[in-house]
Amino acid sequence: MTTIRKLTADDYDQWHPLWRGYNDFYRADVPDEVARQSFGRMVAEQDGMMGLVAENAAGNLIGIAHLVFHPSTWTDGVYCYLEDLFISRNARGTGAGKALIEAVYAHADQRGDVARVYWTTQEFNAPARSLYDQVAKRTSFIRYQRV
Amino acid sequence: MTTIRKLTADDYDQWHPLWRGYNDFYRADVPDEVARQSFGRMVAEQDGMMGLVAENAAGNLIGIAHLVFHPSTWTDGVYCYLEDLFISRNARGTGAGKALIEAVYAHADQRGDVARVYWTTQEFNAPARSLYDQVAKRTSFIRYQRV
Amino acid sequence: MTTIRKLTADDYDQWHPLWRGYNDFYRADVPDEVARQSFGRMVAEQDGMMGLVAENAAGNLIGIAHLVFHPSTWTDGVYCYLEDLFISRNARGTGAGKALIEAVYAHADQRGDVARVYWTTQEFNAPARSLYDQVAKRTSFIRYQRV
Amino acid sequence: MTTIRKLTADDYDQWHPLWRGYNDFYRADVPDEVARQSFGRMVAEQDGMMGLVAENAAGNLIGIAHLVFHPSTWTDGVYCYLEDLFISRNARGTGAGKALIEAVYAHADQRGDVARVYWTTQEFNAPARSLYDQVAKRTSFIRYQRV
Repeated sequence: MTTIRKLTADDYDQWHPLWRGYNDFYRADVPDEVARQSFGRMVAEQDGMMGLVAENAAGNLIGIAHLVFHPSTWTDGVYCYLEDLFISRNARGTGAGKALIEAVYAHADQRGDVARVYWTTQEFNAPARSLYDQVAKRTSFIRYQRV
Repeated sequence: MTTIRKLTADDYDQWHPLWRGYNDFYRADVPDEVARQSFGRMVAEQDGMMGLVAENAAGNLIGIAHLVFHPSTWTDGVYCYLEDLFISRNARGTGAGKALIEAVYAHADQRGDVARVYWTTQEFNAPARSLYDQVAKRTSFIRYQRV
Repeated sequence: MTTIRKLTADDYDQWHPLWRGYNDFYRADVPDEVARQSFGRMVAEQDGMMGLVAENAAGNLIGIAHLVFHPSTWTDGVYCYLEDLFISRNARGTGAGKALIEAVYAHADQRGDVARVYWTTQEFNAPARSLYDQVAKRTSFIRYQRV
Repeated sequence: MTTIRKLTADDYDQWHPLWRGYNDFYRADVPDEVARQSFGRMVAEQDGMMGLVAENAAGNLIGIAHLVFHPSTWTDGVYCYLEDLFISRNARGTGAGKALIEAVYAHADQRGDVARVYWTTQEFNAPARSLYDQVAKRTSFIRYQRV
């Protein structure tokens, strides 16, 4: 049984390897000082940041979801950007990813001021898109970035 | 000669038709109250929002760029989201779009805390992408959105 | 004012040029005998085929939508395939396309056994997709075809 | 040695797990009553539906292909929609998928009224597309669907 709950200060030791696994997936290497700072902002729900975690029956963290709520010119509410989503390798296929996304939706509904929930993924990420196609709408938007 | 400068409170009457043209392009219809509020937040540089405009030699606005600076878990700085970019139909091909993007880059450099400048566009928007491919990098990220 | 109604036997003379315009768009050339037969099947609502038309205030046809209802292994209802959609060049931007799609949805709801309404479009058809993105969900499915 | 033949009433027990595996792939869950009904329609070749199976040397089913023949406004013949194609995990790479597609082509040729054989696949399904690119033509058509 998977439980979804907010990230808390005590989660750091279990959160960190998941964050590292997520970084590895994108061949990224966010410095640990930044990771610690982001963790703190999410736990404190500062700067529009928030974390959700998926916990298995044994009480171990198996997934993380990081949200950034930010303003948009299109709304007087906020946009909810699901910036990071990661499920530990041996918990894939257990429904933890779907449960996290649904918890994001529920949280957005509860806030009441969320005009859009969105995220991005690499177009070739088949396993992720296979899930996303079930619970969301793939838009026609692609991302450009300053070099 | 195109001049790029910050959006100011006096620009509303010229800004509004450009905003409307931009809305039409996306078949969107953001309520005018929201537009007025977003305009105000950009002029006041509140909530991480900011506006830039392109002005032609006659002093008329021919283009707009709206920025949203927001936190990210990946950085202790901020991300700069170029949320809206629009050039009036008869000013297309004058370099105003490129000038606006370069001004965004310059502003980001000047702030000093901007870890990424990014935006999104519809994959089938050939004229826009033709410009973006010159000044930025198309990533492999596509956007998913809650229905 | 645009009216949406079912295709009738009297429409042939106005329907035919729209069908031809649609054929031209796809550089196709369906023989007129086939066109006449398809027209007849749609008017008679035979073989799961049906036609809707958009008529302007002057009573002229400005758009056509052709539906094919077919079985699917995924449902005990039917799928509604919007096979053809065309708006005459000088009626573009009047909302006729959107009105036709909404009429298709309404018709599907009224039938009560329609498990899916879908259609396809070329990925580079910007004007069409700009509309479709507003009223539907772009899926991740692409079409393969025997050579 | 792989044999391709039509689906028969006796195949249900071996067909069902393949159908389930196919459902799992798409994270879908078609109710078993619908599955039973679709199975029956394919065996009886009712409503334009038909099934083909791939059998290994030991006489076990290792793959399924489901066809829906439906009318089209573009032809006085029919279109053959290869709606479902699935090969059991441990029979991948044995050529069963290709053999099924070729049998679909042969069946279409034999019928004599098939104007097009087509199917769709998720754009990120690399293993499937790797096969399809060998035996068919990827079109530029993408699917939109009512939400």
